[in-house]
Amino acid sequence: MFTKTRGGVTAPAGFKAAGISCGIKQRKNDLALIHSGIPCLAAGVFTTNCVKAAPVTLTSQRVARGKAQAVIINSGNANCCTGTKGMADAIEMAELTASALDISPSQTLVCSTGGIGKSLPMDCIREGIPKAVKKLSRGPGDAAEAILTTDLASKQVAVRLNVGGKTVTIGAMAKGSGMIQPNMATMLAFITTDANTGLPFMRKALRRAVNESFNIISVDGDMSTNDTVLLMANGLAGNRKITASYSGAKFQEALTYVCRELARKIVLDGEGATKFVSVLVKEAPSRMAANAVARKIANSPLVKTAIYGQNPNWGRIMSSIGSAGVSLRQENVSVFINKLQVVKNGAKANFSPARARNEMKKKEISVTASLGAGEVSAEIWTCDFSHAYVDINV
Amino acid sequence: MFTKTRGGVTAPAGFKAAGISCGIKQRKNDLALIHSGIPCLAAGVFTTNCVKAAPVTLTSQRVARGKAQAVIINSGNANCCTGTKGMADAIEMAELTASALDISPSQTLVCSTGGIGKSLPMDCIREGIPKAVKKLSRGPGDAAEAILTTDLASKQVAVRLNVGGKTVTIGAMAKGSGMIQPNMATMLAFITTDANTGLPFMRKALRRAVNESFNIISVDGDMSTNDTVLLMANGLAGNRKITASYSGAKFQEALTYVCRELARKIVLDGEGATKFVSVLVKEAPSRMAANAVARKIANSPLVKTAIYGQNPNWGRIMSSIGSAGVSLRQENVSVFINKLQVVKNGAKANFSPARARNEMKKKEISVTASLGAGEVSAEIWTCDFSHAYVDINV
Repeated sequence: MFTKTRGGVTAPAGFKAAGISCGIKQRKNDLALIHSGIPCLAAGVFTTNCVKAAPVTLTSQRVARGKAQAVIINSGNANCCTGTKGMADAIEMAELTASALDISPSQTLVCSTGGIGKSLPMDCIREGIPKAVKKLSRGPGDAAEAILTTDLASKQVAVRLNVGGKTVTIGAMAKGSGMIQPNMATMLAFITTDANTGLPFMRKALRRAVNESFNIISVDGDMSTNDTVLLMANGLAGNRKITASYSGAKFQEALTYVCRELARKIVLDGEGATKFVSVLVKEAPSRMAANAVARKIANSPLVKTAIYGQNPNWGRIMSSIGSAGVSLRQENVSVFINKLQVVKNGAKANFSPARARNEMKKKEISVTASLGAGEVSAEIWTCDFSHAYVDINV
Repeated sequence: MFTKTRGGVTAPAGFKAAGISCGIKQRKNDLALIHSGIPCLAAGVFTTNCVKAAPVTLTSQRVARGKAQAVIINSGNANCCTGTKGMADAIEMAELTASALDISPSQTLVCSTGGIGKSLPMDCIREGIPKAVKKLSRGPGDAAEAILTTDLASKQVAVRLNVGGKTVTIGAMAKGSGMIQPNMATMLAFITTDANTGLPFMRKALRRAVNESFNIISVDGDMSTNDTVLLMANGLAGNRKITASYSGAKFQEALTYVCRELARKIVLDGEGATKFVSVLVKEAPSRMAANAVARKIANSPLVKTAIYGQNPNWGRIMSSIGSAGVSLRQENVSVFINKLQVVKNGAKANFSPARARNEMKKKEISVTASLGAGEVSAEIWTCDFSHAYVDINV
């Protein structure tokens, strides 16, 4: 009950964005700004890594108060493990942005992404912020580029839905390519909306959307120090207030779609990825068990290199299933690659090797494992593991 | 209190071995046999993967009875996920071996290693077993080669110790290169001894040695379906019976050394490995926490590719530490690469980048993380993650 539209984070009424090159990276956009003409309600979901970047600590504190009007984001430096100077720098980034926009510093959020352990080059940022403010516009492309690190493509989505006769728009952009593992990833996602809604509903809706999108993806099993998803709602659509009981399901559906589209784009742009892989585990005894098996398959370097090599190596899938720490009976397990059954009753099914090789040539591969040990399912999206992954990360 | 010697599994009195090519693999040795002139006490440790190969099920049942006189091992095929035919084939391998050696089938153990999901080529094995029996000798080299899969080098150790004036010898061989993760790995290890000892002591000693050796190594975080460690003792040294209270500590020390040497060789021969990496986590709140952090670091593809690239990327180590699911305070964490402190109070320590790069050039790298959250330590040995790993596994 929504339609796709264009415009990323500036698709909703009242939002502008900018992206510039301030010199943190050579010649590439590295500083992005999102601004709403009026203050927004804000909700966020943050990394659960105990090692957190300074801007994550700052922004999560500010978001907890529920209000925001702007987000300043730099790429090329994570401002993580940078001690007390790191926190001072994050606070200064917010103050400079607030001052140039004439808004409250406490409603200015900060995100950083890039390498860990070097202090931010604050000279670049001090010069860059006023320039970014001057370039604010209804075009989201420069901002979507400025947040990227090893990503090969920028990632934007926007949708429109009708709420009681008013058009509500949700826009978004994200970055993320490596260090991607549930919960959350080296990923940032910014979602804007002109919906009129309330904080309790927004918070729950965002958490639910994240659980069904960013939290089911994994590129390499590593979780980042800087992961952040932000949702800002300025109410300019003028709709009757969306709550759990008024148009909540409709808004949730659209918001979840936006997050899943971004999550999908992140996996497709996984470092060195040549394939999109969805792992579905069925008939598990519990949600935790289903997740453990799905992640074990999705994170297995042996499964991932086999998929890269287009090799229907179901033995590695079986070995991963058995080693996930979940009690199961081998003879109850079935495995499918796409729709082709490769394991039946825990042993090789009767399938054509040529058909299996053909399935593996597809760009999108699904691996479905039925454990025969219960009724719970879980899904994880991942990519394959290639020479290029090693190239990117040495 | 022991000295190294030569001779692998045939170093102890009464043991012979053979390795031949029976045609499972092209032109390479693929069938190994170990035989003791008289029946032995036997103990074993087996994979905890719920998906187990047929020979693992058979051999663990036989070892539980405490007696063995021979082991027949094939490489090139894991006989795993092969249904009821797989179990029939494993039983037949033992029967053919027992018949050719004129010993009891129930004291004949079977191990297989290789690809999962294809039935054993029993014609090759039926022809091969009598040939292997004819080639039994005091030379262990052919057997040590015949158990290899993607290994580049055979792995043998032997030591001698004095027990009440008698010389006791322990000999061993192992294979393992990929799918290596605690607990145990795609690894087989065979340990022979002429010690006179008892079953309860042997079982405990082997379990302890395995916990301090094979269970602390990880190549790729994947656990195999076929892992087996066997210890056979024939008593021919004629020593007073070793028990926990008589020479137990001395025997344990030697046995643990043998297992650690084999484990070290397995890591050094890890698929695509260019470096040996020991990860030591200190000051953790519990053994489980220490292990979780050590494994998170050791299995992180980002840490492993950085080590391959000789890049002192301590930020990735910090991110792994924080994401292991262990509650800790970032500002209490220290990290050392070899003896060089790279993280102090959770942020970059004051170190020379040139010195750090030099440390990373070494063939052996230690990563030490002090969590400042308790008093428990854990160690994991691993290797780096290279282009060659991908080449081997596509």
